[in-house]
Amino acid sequence: MAGPENESVGENAREPVEAGLYSDDGVIRPTFLAHIGAAIADRDVLTLKQDVAGLHQSELGDLIEALLPEQRRALVDLLGDDFDFTALTEVDDAIRMEIVDGLPNERIATAMQELDSDDAVYILEDLDAQDQDEILAKLPFTERIRLRRSLDYPEETAGRRMQTEFVAVPPFWTVGQTIDYMRDDQNLPDEFSQIFVVDPTFKLLGAVHLDQILRTKRAVKIEDIMHETRHAIPATMDQEEAAREFEQYDLLSAAVVDENERLVGVLTIDDVVDVIQQEAQEDLLRMGGVGDEELSDTVAATSRSRAPWLLVNLGTAFLSASVIGLFDATIEEMVALAILMPIVASMGGNAGTQTMTVTVRALATKDLDIYNAGRIIRRETLVGIINGVIFATLIGIVAGLWFQNPGLGGVIATAMVVNMLAAALAGILIPLLLDKFGADPAIASAVFVTMVTDVVGFFAFLGLATLWFGIG
Amino acid sequence: MAGPENESVGENAREPVEAGLYSDDGVIRPTFLAHIGAAIADRDVLTLKQDVAGLHQSELGDLIEALLPEQRRALVDLLGDDFDFTALTEVDDAIRMEIVDGLPNERIATAMQELDSDDAVYILEDLDAQDQDEILAKLPFTERIRLRRSLDYPEETAGRRMQTEFVAVPPFWTVGQTIDYMRDDQNLPDEFSQIFVVDPTFKLLGAVHLDQILRTKRAVKIEDIMHETRHAIPATMDQEEAAREFEQYDLLSAAVVDENERLVGVLTIDDVVDVIQQEAQEDLLRMGGVGDEELSDTVAATSRSRAPWLLVNLGTAFLSASVIGLFDATIEEMVALAILMPIVASMGGNAGTQTMTVTVRALATKDLDIYNAGRIIRRETLVGIINGVIFATLIGIVAGLWFQNPGLGGVIATAMVVNMLAAALAGILIPLLLDKFGADPAIASAVFVTMVTDVVGFFAFLGLATLWFGIG
Repeated sequence: MAGPENESVGENAREPVEAGLYSDDGVIRPTFLAHIGAAIADRDVLTLKQDVAGLHQSELGDLIEALLPEQRRALVDLLGDDFDFTALTEVDDAIRMEIVDGLPNERIATAMQELDSDDAVYILEDLDAQDQDEILAKLPFTERIRLRRSLDYPEETAGRRMQTEFVAVPPFWTVGQTIDYMRDDQNLPDEFSQIFVVDPTFKLLGAVHLDQILRTKRAVKIEDIMHETRHAIPATMDQEEAAREFEQYDLLSAAVVDENERLVGVLTIDDVVDVIQQEAQEDLLRMGGVGDEELSDTVAATSRSRAPWLLVNLGTAFLSASVIGLFDATIEEMVALAILMPIVASMGGNAGTQTMTVTVRALATKDLDIYNAGRIIRRETLVGIINGVIFATLIGIVAGLWFQNPGLGGVIATAMVVNMLAAALAGILIPLLLDKFGADPAIASAVFVTMVTDVVGFFAFLGLATLWFGIG
Repeated sequence: MAGPENESVGENAREPVEAGLYSDDGVIRPTFLAHIGAAIADRDVLTLKQDVAGLHQSELGDLIEALLPEQRRALVDLLGDDFDFTALTEVDDAIRMEIVDGLPNERIATAMQELDSDDAVYILEDLDAQDQDEILAKLPFTERIRLRRSLDYPEETAGRRMQTEFVAVPPFWTVGQTIDYMRDDQNLPDEFSQIFVVDPTFKLLGAVHLDQILRTKRAVKIEDIMHETRHAIPATMDQEEAAREFEQYDLLSAAVVDENERLVGVLTIDDVVDVIQQEAQEDLLRMGGVGDEELSDTVAATSRSRAPWLLVNLGTAFLSASVIGLFDATIEEMVALAILMPIVASMGGNAGTQTMTVTVRALATKDLDIYNAGRIIRRETLVGIINGVIFATLIGIVAGLWFQNPGLGGVIATAMVVNMLAAALAGILIPLLLDKFGADPAIASAVFVTMVTDVVGFFAFLGLATLWFGIG
């Protein structure tokens, strides 16, 4: 969090940054980038070190993302030991891999010793096992053990995201002893907001927030001011579940414990914020029919990852087509039906998507449960009927006038009400059922909902028309 | 963060909670709810106080949401002064308003004095001006001034979300003096992670993290260990922008300053996490064609809020219909076209939605900028062509076989490639243009993208068929 040296105190916080890296709209200044690019081309190490020294790790990350691939590698080489590897935790996976793969394991091992364990694990976890082993072998014993322990936990668990540096004291110490210990110990974590209380086997007993220590007299024992840690996180807990604990209980950091309830690390809110962001983003991308894409993915990777979804949609599109095919005689008699039928399907698809979006989100945030599911289903059904009737009337009038055929207006209006009702029910029941059977409603709901609204829309409209006009 | 008294220490953190309020899947236990319902019906204040005493504010919030409206009001009445008003910051807006509207202003004023200022403001800000004034008038002078100051900042700014309780010391104090001050002062905030350094006019000079104080000898001056606050937040800054500062710089708390750079409050990460969640949720809901809905909204409110979107969709649906109308003679000749045309539109819509989802999200996270826009447009175009050719071939073969008409297979395949290309371009250019002109790409992109893919899909397919088969 150290600012550039020339920063004037108390000034509007954004200004020093804007004057350097970012322009007003939060994008990296082209002049800054050109300047860095020229320095890289000239191999002007001094300028580079000066310009990069004042950057926060996330700013350096943004800068790296804005550079060309060959510039990125040159920058890391030229900066040497002055390159802050934490910046690599702030860039796209593909870019991180590209940079790390280009570096000798020796260099990575040296860099890892400077990092907090959670950042080191973040960089190491994507390497193949052989590189990991080589790098770990070059580390001092305690560091190696710490990183190995984190890496041994499964991906996306609290154990992978935790920091293994923390302060732990016995319960019988006094506040004074604790403060003296912290003043003397040179190996404290970089920043921390609570200290943990453990027994001789490192079993977690409780925690004390730093403000509590500061407001307590030196003679008071730690066990008298510690609170029992209600929200210790098992190391094997999924990171999303851990994030929900943080959100629900407004935690800043939480102890991570192993299966014997021994303290093994600490999970901090800054890592959790990233998980929360990721999770919300995942839901959004999945509902849009996209997997775990990154902007830096190649054309081939992107095409491949989107194809399965298009294939599923192709199947449902042929299903809708075959429903229309049932009524080919009717359409031949009355081509207006072919013109109007996409309206019924499209309005149903839209209404279904609205209900589905609300349902998927409410399921993700655990706001939708057995206590309100009945009420929400009733509400969505009523909303479907009300908006169905309103828009059916509108469409019926317009269609009747367009084709000078009041009967056609009546048919499309009736089909619309039916489809809007189907849309509401599909929009809520499909995600609920997927959730009940353990599938992620964000992934598959959209395709099933539009399948229902297409099939019901075409069938209701063309079927009613066949009956009404007595064709076929 | 205080746990229930009988909690056994070091145990898996979830168990004590599960044994009480929540069942395994994170939903409130029906037995717990029935128990509370019975106690409310019996007006059994003692049981209620006991059961609610151990709950975290967010757990009490969940409980309130699960109760029936009449039970909610009864619970608040029966608990009296034991009701923790912070729980109201954890429930849906509609439920909070329903409870607060039912309480006398006198009662609200008493409760507000127990709350942190940010929670009090959260509850007060939705009341009408008259009630606000009445409640504020009943508060002691300093509390009134503090809350008034927050309420005077516009909605959704840092000033509205900040806490006005903080610790500030002069730069010439020593670490020892600072610790002694905190030990003696009875009016410290509930929990804090840094203290601020100000001049006599309360101009912000810097900040010191608590761990820094704890690891420094008593004789050292605060000004020698403080860091200059690079990330002070102007009180008028939009809360989303403030949240981005927290995310980018991994802040736990940040000073909020007025237009004269005087310290007026502190913004903490727990409030920011809520803003981040909200923001991600907003994008998701907007892309699904839903506004700021809540699960507790009524049928009327929900119908109304969704209607504008359906109306816009109706307009675009009629536009597509009129495109089909141009080719009525062709369809009359060859009804297979009516059967197949929704496939072309639907595949385009799907591909367009994929590209659009990625684009909207990348714009929201500021990952898409002038440095990579060109590359992303090229990538999406290529992905559109590649997946277009693959699926066009597939559809062409199936359609040709279905209708025993190779010419028809060729026509639909060609139309598909055209529409997938249009989908890719619309999916990226429409959000980019909306963003450039200051509109929120999450709101309007979906409707325009599907409009393009419907119109291009129908026009390309029916137009090519007309040319190829020489009809019309």
